[in-house]
Amino acid sequence: MNYTIGIDLGGTNTRIGLVEESGKIVEVIKFKTYDHKELNDFVETLSDNIVSIAQKYNLPKECIKAGIGAPNGNYYNGTIEQAPNLPFKGIVPLVDLLKESLKTKSYSAKVVLTNDANAAAMGEKIYGKAKNVRDFVMITLGTGVGSGIFVDNKLVYGKSGFAGEAGHAIVQPEGRACGCGRHGCLETYCSATGIVRTAKELLKNESTPSLLRAINQDMITAKDISEAADKHDPLALRCFDITARYLALGLANVAVITSPEAIFISGGLSKAGEKLFKPLREYFEQFLYPVFRNTISIEPSALEDNEVAILGAASLVF
Amino acid sequence: MNYTIGIDLGGTNTRIGLVEESGKIVEVIKFKTYDHKELNDFVETLSDNIVSIAQKYNLPKECIKAGIGAPNGNYYNGTIEQAPNLPFKGIVPLVDLLKESLKTKSYSAKVVLTNDANAAAMGEKIYGKAKNVRDFVMITLGTGVGSGIFVDNKLVYGKSGFAGEAGHAIVQPEGRACGCGRHGCLETYCSATGIVRTAKELLKNESTPSLLRAINQDMITAKDISEAADKHDPLALRCFDITARYLALGLANVAVITSPEAIFISGGLSKAGEKLFKPLREYFEQFLYPVFRNTISIEPSALEDNEVAILGAASLVF
Repeated sequence: MNYTIGIDLGGTNTRIGLVEESGKIVEVIKFKTYDHKELNDFVETLSDNIVSIAQKYNLPKECIKAGIGAPNGNYYNGTIEQAPNLPFKGIVPLVDLLKESLKTKSYSAKVVLTNDANAAAMGEKIYGKAKNVRDFVMITLGTGVGSGIFVDNKLVYGKSGFAGEAGHAIVQPEGRACGCGRHGCLETYCSATGIVRTAKELLKNESTPSLLRAINQDMITAKDISEAADKHDPLALRCFDITARYLALGLANVAVITSPEAIFISGGLSKAGEKLFKPLREYFEQFLYPVFRNTISIEPSALEDNEVAILGAASLVF
Repeated sequence: MNYTIGIDLGGTNTRIGLVEESGKIVEVIKFKTYDHKELNDFVETLSDNIVSIAQKYNLPKECIKAGIGAPNGNYYNGTIEQAPNLPFKGIVPLVDLLKESLKTKSYSAKVVLTNDANAAAMGEKIYGKAKNVRDFVMITLGTGVGSGIFVDNKLVYGKSGFAGEAGHAIVQPEGRACGCGRHGCLETYCSATGIVRTAKELLKNESTPSLLRAINQDMITAKDISEAADKHDPLALRCFDITARYLALGLANVAVITSPEAIFISGGLSKAGEKLFKPLREYFEQFLYPVFRNTISIEPSALEDNEVAILGAASLVF
């Protein structure tokens, strides 16, 4: 059996999955990323876990294959650079460190790293709906908005290795402050955090009755908004409408650059279903350059959120 | 000598150039596109001119190589589709028609077509500053704003063949009406027409003295604005500042998608020099996603406007 290890390195958890070439995830080990404030400790725990999986499944010591999806991951350099939500600051040469650590444990490894949204795009390409699609965009709606873009059957990395940051395309020049220091980035409106900001703004500026008013405003989550919308709460439905409109604008601007055949959406908010997708498709057609109208599909990812990152990371080295 | 024919098909003129592989343009014939309201007449004139060049320079009858840059040109299909500024409406299978017409004159041809901005990008790649640049964006500032985008050393065509329409990325969702039927497209602000609209708005809404007030407002051109700016006219300088700011925003949004190493700008407005490029570079750095700052150059194209289209078209088939 041909196995690969897919590693989903997130701000909260790091999950290590053993993946068959067919896309079946055989086993997952996870540990808390934040329990390791020291980079070397983290690398040690990561390599220990890889070795334990390798031993259990008898993987060949001379060639372990591992892919890593991580925020701000740079494919060219094998580094994680300035990731705001990880405990390790600056430029972290994770691929080199992991390979060295595995070497001290008598394992030789091929390790590839990219950012989490690129990994998701690769997962969709190898195991999801994008199998036969040469040009597509993968959007991940999580705490932030990530994207991975395929052009002519290849993931776009660009000069820097950081291409495909659609979440930081500016959709409203004088808009909301973004964590990146600028204003009006797509993710300030369309991430899980973004829709919560929208809800808080509406609750503050309007007097519309809403189920959300029963919740302490500091505690409102995207899930609360989604549940209220399911109960036809007008204010919660408007939150989805506003989110869909900005996302449509951002996607129409990506489409005009790369002319995709399809756009796939994963991540927590994508689970909202037609509350999001219906207005999204409508606004998208409105914002789309006419020559592209009715030719680009927008669909939820075929992969489960808990598997897309591991499968995507694994598929980097298959 | 290895010759190629580069054809610049524009709304006003069609220019046919004979190009050496070195990039030297040996001869140019031109005729009025608009003198031919009938498509078949146009194709006849075009093929007659190609044959006359072929005879004069003894090109091999069995293999003429010709590249065409045309508005709304589709590389995949060899068609011009719904071009608003050409007399031929609908979908025009120009490559097939030209090959057939040449065949009746005993010439066999390889003909390739793409849109004018893609041809310009190809010209910059083969003969200009982009020779050693794998990831770049070419922007043409003319009556409209066109773009051609290289990713990993290849021109991006996308699923449709119409990728790289940065001029129709929306930079101001509730902004100016665009000829494409939408609002706030980059080209409504940054084309030659766009800067004239900016000037007219400022002249109407403000009472600032300006050299431009001496000109009949219906007759103001981008050149007038440029000349007034050269004389330090504050209103004209603001026109360039506004143009630069929108262009910077549009380019920053392209950069976050494809992560280019460089951006090259050609077309009439690019001749304005530092009046445009200085504020453009400043705003660009402000709008740019921080990880890209100070890594992407913005420069005028190395090619003259009257040669870029012909060289670009010719380079499609070299």
